[in-house]
Order: sequence, then structure tokens, then C-alpha cells
Amino acid sequence: MAPVKEDHCEDSLTYMGFALHQAKLALEALEVPVGCVILEDGKVIASGRNRTNETRNATRHAEMEAIDQLVGQWQEDGLSPSQVAEKFSKCILYVTCEPCIMCASALSFLGIKEVYYGCPNDKFGGCGSILSLHLGSSQSSDIIEEAQRGKAYKCRGGIMAEEAVSLFKSFYEQGNPNAPKPHRPVVQRERT
Amino acid sequence: MAPVKEDHCEDSLTYMGFALHQAKLALEALEVPVGCVILEDGKVIASGRNRTNETRNATRHAEMEAIDQLVGQWQEDGLSPSQVAEKFSKCILYVTCEPCIMCASALSFLGIKEVYYGCPNDKFGGCGSILSLHLGSSQSSDIIEEAQRGKAYKCRGGIMAEEAVSLFKSFYEQGNPNAPKPHRPVVQRERT
Repeated sequence: MAPVKEDHCEDSLTYMGFALHQAKLALEALEVPVGCVILEDGKVIASGRNRTNETRNATRHAEMEAIDQLVGQWQEDGLSPSQVAEKFSKCILYVTCEPCIMCASALSFLGIKEVYYGCPNDKFGGCGSILSLHLGSSQSSDIIEEAQRGKAYKCRGGIMAEEAVSLFKSFYEQGNPNAPKPHRPVVQRERT
Repeated sequence: MAPVKEDHCEDSLTYMGFALHQAKLALEALEVPVGCVILEDGKVIASGRNRTNETRNATRHAEMEAIDQLVGQWQEDGLSPSQVAEKFSKCILYVTCEPCIMCASALSFLGIKEVYYGCPNDKFGGCGSILSLHLGSSQSSDIIEEAQRGKAYKCRGGIMAEEAVSLFKSFYEQGNPNAPKPHRPVVQRERT
């Protein structure tokens, strides 16, 4: 076994553990349990969890939360658009569930370096399940290409997938407070 | 000619005119010129323009700007998630360029009623050009379906498309300050 690969695997489990912690926080807040972290040089520089219920905004997925937190910080630091783009090109995202089409597309616009996810998103997954937005666009240019170009990024799934699915199961067992009615009763879970 | 259809067309031109005004504001701010408005009962309740350069955030498209403005207001008003969903189901969006995959997907998550756009987005369009996310998902359910369901919405393009393309041309003639180098020189336009 190559030690480098072993180290990589160990790191992956550590980072996905951080993302799963965010997902657990979402679960405790009665949100669909998805969490993520963004890394730069092996250090967590942003984290996010699903906040669609709290914000009443169905687009506030974990990835969008982490992205906005990070870009907001870089904006405060006075980084230029090209400096932000350079930063993102070195960032790695760990997320408990495959990014949906919206988030996978957003990560492509931002030019993130790598994405690692837990379980697949069979219905809306944008990194292999439904679409492969991480492969970038190979189509010919048009008038808005320069402005809205999606970049390719490395992507791998299946890291601690069982733990991610287990959190989804817990969520549906307790009942989703915002599911279309009629739905199962919402049971407040004890904090773990 | 049916008067109802005539009225509808006239309204469409008026509302797209509002969206084009937002796109012109983006152009003056050296942003990729895309603008939108969101209507409820024929009244503009939110507007947005592309702010990707200003925010250093490549995901801040006109639609995302308008959505966040609107949901923020509804959150302040104390609307519940289901009330917000009901509001969106009555909203109509006018945008100068076909929503990209990210924005088309976001509009599907939010459950917007109708979308009207100007020119097509041949590279990243999510409402017919590359994907048809406005048609919703017809796939079988899985564990996260309930939480991340994309809804269908009515969509029509080609409204004042020439005006929208003309703004893009103006943008590229003046030069995109954030295009990858080497790029054409940026020429500050006089305000029109």
C-alpha cells in the first residue's frame, strides 16, 4: 500500500467527519441533514449546513451557505475578483451528499479545485448522477461564454456514504416540518 | 386578433423593459448585462442585476440577487416556509437572458409560476437550451426527494431578445474587466 494514498484516505475521513458534523447540526435544527466544509492547504476555511427551512429559502443548501460565507470574508479582506478566483482554484470541498445541479453548477462557475462527497443524489445530482457538471463545458463559444464559463473540477463520491444516508433516514423518521401536507408528524429529537 | 393576447404581449414588453433597465444598470457598472424583475399580481416586487464582479462571487446572477432580496423581505415580514412557497407559486420572473442551469434549478426549487426570458443562453441555458429544468423532474422518488424536489414552471423565451443581445455586444465591445488575461482593454463607457 502506498503511504501517500493511505494518508489521503485518512485525511478524507477526517474532513468528511467535519462535514458530517455540520449535517448533524442541520438535523438538530430540523433541517434536511447536509453539511460541508471548504479547505485550503488542508485547513478548514469555511463550513455550511442546509438552512432552507430557517431562511425560508429553498436554495440555501450547505454549499451555497459555505460559499457565501467564504466570499463575504474575502470581500471584506479586499480581495479582487481575480484573487478570489485564484483562491477558489486551490480550494477543496467536502460535502455529505452529492451536490445538486444548482450547487454543482455554482461550484463550476467559481472554479473550485476538487469536490468529495458522501452519498449520491439520485434525483438532482450534478456531479455524475443526473448531470456531470464537474466535467465543465466542452461546447463551442458564444457571446456569453466569457462571462458565464463553467470550469471542470475533480470529483469523487462514496466517502462515508452510509453515515450520510443514516442522517437522511433519521430526518425522515422524525418527519420533515416543511414537507407537503399530509406528512408524518414531526418529533423533536434529543440532541446527541 | 384576440385582445387578451394583445394585452398579454403588451404587458410582456413592459415587464421585459423593466428587466432590460436592470441589465443596463449592470452594463454601466461594468458587469455582464443581465437583469430581471419578479412580479406578483402584475406588480414588480423585486428586481436584480448581475453583480458577479462587485461581489467577487461568480454565482451572484441577476436571478439569485432578486430571489435573495425577495425572500429576505418575506423573512422580515415573518412569513413561514409554506407561506413563502405559496407566494413563489404566484410569481412571474422576467429576465433578459435565459436562466443558466444554476438559476433555472434554483427557480425550480423555489416553485416559481412562470419565467419569460429574452435571448437564449446557448452554453449554460437551463430552460431549454442545454437542459429543460423548467419541466421539473419525472424520476422516481428516493430518500432525498421530499427535501430537494424541483417543480415544473411555465417558460417562454424570445421576448425583446435583440435588445438583450445588443447589451451583451456593448459589454464585450467595452471589454470585460474580469476576463482571463490577455483580454481586450476596458473602456469606461459614458452613462446613457
